[in-house]
Amino acid sequence: MKPKDKYEIISEMAKRRGYFWPSYEIYGGVSGFLTFGPLGSLLKRRLEDKFRRFYIRPLGILEIETSIIMPGKVLEASGHVESFKEPTVECLKCQHKFRADHLLQEFGEMSDTETEKLTLQAVVEEIKNRNIHCPECGGDFSKAEQFMTMFTTTIGPYSDSVGYGRPEAAQGIFVEFKRIHESARGKLPLGVVQIGHALRNEISPRQGPVRLREFTIIDIEFFLDPENTKCERLHEVENDTLRLITAENKLNGVTEPIEVTVKEALNKGIIKKEWQAYFMALAKRFLVELGVPEDKQRFIEKLEWERAHYSVQGFDQEVYLERWGWTEVSGHNYRTDYDLSRHMKFSGVDLTAFKETENEGGKRFIPHVVEPSFGLDRLVYVALEYAYTKKKKRTLLSLSRELAPLQMGVFPLVSKDGLPEKAKEVYQMLINEGFTVEWDESGSIGRRYARADEVGTPLGVTVDYQTLEDGTVTLRDRDTWKQVRSKIENLPELLHDYFRNKIDFEGLGQLVER
Amino acid sequence: MKPKDKYEIISEMAKRRGYFWPSYEIYGGVSGFLTFGPLGSLLKRRLEDKFRRFYIRPLGILEIETSIIMPGKVLEASGHVESFKEPTVECLKCQHKFRADHLLQEFGEMSDTETEKLTLQAVVEEIKNRNIHCPECGGDFSKAEQFMTMFTTTIGPYSDSVGYGRPEAAQGIFVEFKRIHESARGKLPLGVVQIGHALRNEISPRQGPVRLREFTIIDIEFFLDPENTKCERLHEVENDTLRLITAENKLNGVTEPIEVTVKEALNKGIIKKEWQAYFMALAKRFLVELGVPEDKQRFIEKLEWERAHYSVQGFDQEVYLERWGWTEVSGHNYRTDYDLSRHMKFSGVDLTAFKETENEGGKRFIPHVVEPSFGLDRLVYVALEYAYTKKKKRTLLSLSRELAPLQMGVFPLVSKDGLPEKAKEVYQMLINEGFTVEWDESGSIGRRYARADEVGTPLGVTVDYQTLEDGTVTLRDRDTWKQVRSKIENLPELLHDYFRNKIDFEGLGQLVER
Repeated sequence: MKPKDKYEIISEMAKRRGYFWPSYEIYGGVSGFLTFGPLGSLLKRRLEDKFRRFYIRPLGILEIETSIIMPGKVLEASGHVESFKEPTVECLKCQHKFRADHLLQEFGEMSDTETEKLTLQAVVEEIKNRNIHCPECGGDFSKAEQFMTMFTTTIGPYSDSVGYGRPEAAQGIFVEFKRIHESARGKLPLGVVQIGHALRNEISPRQGPVRLREFTIIDIEFFLDPENTKCERLHEVENDTLRLITAENKLNGVTEPIEVTVKEALNKGIIKKEWQAYFMALAKRFLVELGVPEDKQRFIEKLEWERAHYSVQGFDQEVYLERWGWTEVSGHNYRTDYDLSRHMKFSGVDLTAFKETENEGGKRFIPHVVEPSFGLDRLVYVALEYAYTKKKKRTLLSLSRELAPLQMGVFPLVSKDGLPEKAKEVYQMLINEGFTVEWDESGSIGRRYARADEVGTPLGVTVDYQTLEDGTVTLRDRDTWKQVRSKIENLPELLHDYFRNKIDFEGLGQLVER
Repeated sequence: MKPKDKYEIISEMAKRRGYFWPSYEIYGGVSGFLTFGPLGSLLKRRLEDKFRRFYIRPLGILEIETSIIMPGKVLEASGHVESFKEPTVECLKCQHKFRADHLLQEFGEMSDTETEKLTLQAVVEEIKNRNIHCPECGGDFSKAEQFMTMFTTTIGPYSDSVGYGRPEAAQGIFVEFKRIHESARGKLPLGVVQIGHALRNEISPRQGPVRLREFTIIDIEFFLDPENTKCERLHEVENDTLRLITAENKLNGVTEPIEVTVKEALNKGIIKKEWQAYFMALAKRFLVELGVPEDKQRFIEKLEWERAHYSVQGFDQEVYLERWGWTEVSGHNYRTDYDLSRHMKFSGVDLTAFKETENEGGKRFIPHVVEPSFGLDRLVYVALEYAYTKKKKRTLLSLSRELAPLQMGVFPLVSKDGLPEKAKEVYQMLINEGFTVEWDESGSIGRRYARADEVGTPLGVTVDYQTLEDGTVTLRDRDTWKQVRSKIENLPELLHDYFRNKIDFEGLGQLVER
């Protein structure tokens, strides 16, 4: 029997303990949808908040919220109605439909770089040449068709009022640029972010949290004066190293990334815009904070025919995952003035910015856009895979204090002699202090510690007989299994400091020798 | 000229300053969609977090996140495909479509209680009898039709795979009940909440933030053993008074609410379930915390024919708004075992809970559900309308410290002599402490204070010449316009205490006499 890979182990735990699972199981499942249970929803929210603290707030980026259903004209203007399509083939025997490029990758030994380049006609020929048949029934395939991978609907009671599920949150920002820019009193550079659900009607998604039809996207649109694209914060990251596979190297078959500093990448013209390099460096740092070491990360440049229709330079940030290999977690595209120009043209509304100039008095121009974009669901999975570890045959999820969904468990040592009552007091006090705390009194204390370790709860708070005597409890560290004793009355302050990373575990009390 | 009502004044400010505005304005607008700008998005998030602190966490309610697109069978099972419809008529002349019941309410002097009762046939007759014509062109109407107000789409490449935009977040909880209940190790009562976007394809929404096609819903499904529906927390609220219009009084034309305590309402059988009464009392307290006085709130019981298809007793919590009168902000329905029973029947999967009993050893049963459900967008608007006030002809938004999107503004008194540089230091330090801070150096200090008052920023931090001498700044209170002086180095601790409501404005420093 093949040993389970990390994805299998984590998925099994995730289902059982309430991190995530495939949606609609009672109806046989619908692929491409994922449910975040109580722990997963907490982890996702903590990750989102960490992103805000790390990536959004220090840069003064403004967050907005727009609708998921968008009128057709917005996505016509953006080019999605024309370009957001994938080649499909249908089995002539069993009528199953497949993404043609995925078939060529899975059964035809072609890379995604190769399949991206193919015309619809060429796709069919390659499928024939490589003798690929329906993986379900062995049948032959029909000629290929372009399938638009946006969810289509109708807004209101008139059938000609087409709407789409947004495939990205970015368009919500572009169409509202005018008002946001005005309310920010004309400021540039201007960063705007949206975090929310997005929809892509994938043809046959089969990769759990990695390829979803509904997912949470973080799109930052960073608007710049094209004549002044200097990044005044570059010095913060200029000596960070990036592992890059350039388009040129990729074309030449080089699969090993080069290592360059941000400064070098800019000087050599590998990355075109300073802000783009800045955001890539931050993205790398962010993934390190999520637990992904530098050598498990890389940036890979998109070739011209691989890039989205709006992009003139694009890098994917990839993370190595045991099941899927190198997997995109963020995209960094230089979208130029493409989107604003198109919306200006389609709406007839002026979306330019104004700047004062020395001679002419002033000048209007269309801002350019550098876009970092993250898939939040994938980040949740990445954090879990990299937190997964084993200690003495026990599963242990080593999530950072900031990310762990439950901050502590409260355990009465035994269910008698007034210990549960005392423990409930401690539990309620910690809840009132705003901590996320789990109550667990079933089974031996060892089993309860094991359950807490498995979901990554950093601290165990145990109420024992000594508690009744001197008002102290033990605190147990998930990773080292060390214990300290501490007075209940001191817990709030100590624990706030601990979860703000101001003190270490040993600072929480008196070490218990065992 | 008619004086502007509060809605007009707030909408105008909201657009200009970035709270909210109608979406897709550059394309002429699409009604029923609202964009939350930078301030609105912050306010909405703060309100959501306050809800979690107030309503979710103390009760140990578990939060989950499920998809917005749902497969058809889920909404067939839930009864929505059959029942989620509204009567429409089409103008035979200009082809505009209208909600027939809304026409009767607006032009036919009927109440919603009356129109809810009408059959489709009766709707047409009433429109004829009351001589109602197309408000757009004066034309006659077609016969009425039931229009399904869910957004319809297709999931994946097969046209028979119908999907809908979810009209409520509740169904995501019901279909996942089995796993959640298992991961909570069979606990009952079990509260589960989902906060997220929901979609209703309204026919012709025209009421700004009050009637939206896409909105954010908070659905709490509280699962109970039907043989043990006691609420162990009832004592917390039993003496709270509720203003209620019972179904019976409504039928008899009584429009004035009765005032009863929670205990009385239960004893007299006015509210059927203790948990329902408990949640209603909490909802009232929550709205008080948002700034709505008790006499601007009421609960109105739904008549049998007004209730949703799943409800056996339902109350709407209403708040008085200047433009729209009494407006629903939350619904409190006793959904019994309706949803779980239907999903059991349609999926064939056992969704029962188990309990140990004295005689038989154990027994399986379908949990019952009490549901409090809130519309978050409306709450945002309610908070703004009730925060709106005037002081010496100036607009002032008196949002609580907890809700105000920007916590403070930092202002250099003048733009020279090193004051901006010093102020930037203070600004950056406050950002690093995690506060949301606005930088403003344009115009006179008076104008900057006025701008901050208008969007509800509680504190102004001004750096002046004295700052350069002794390292103190002034802090200005939005509501009283009082000022205190305080050392920069003491600000972090003082301000954290202030925003946690531990100290008042006067505790922030030395009062400045003027």
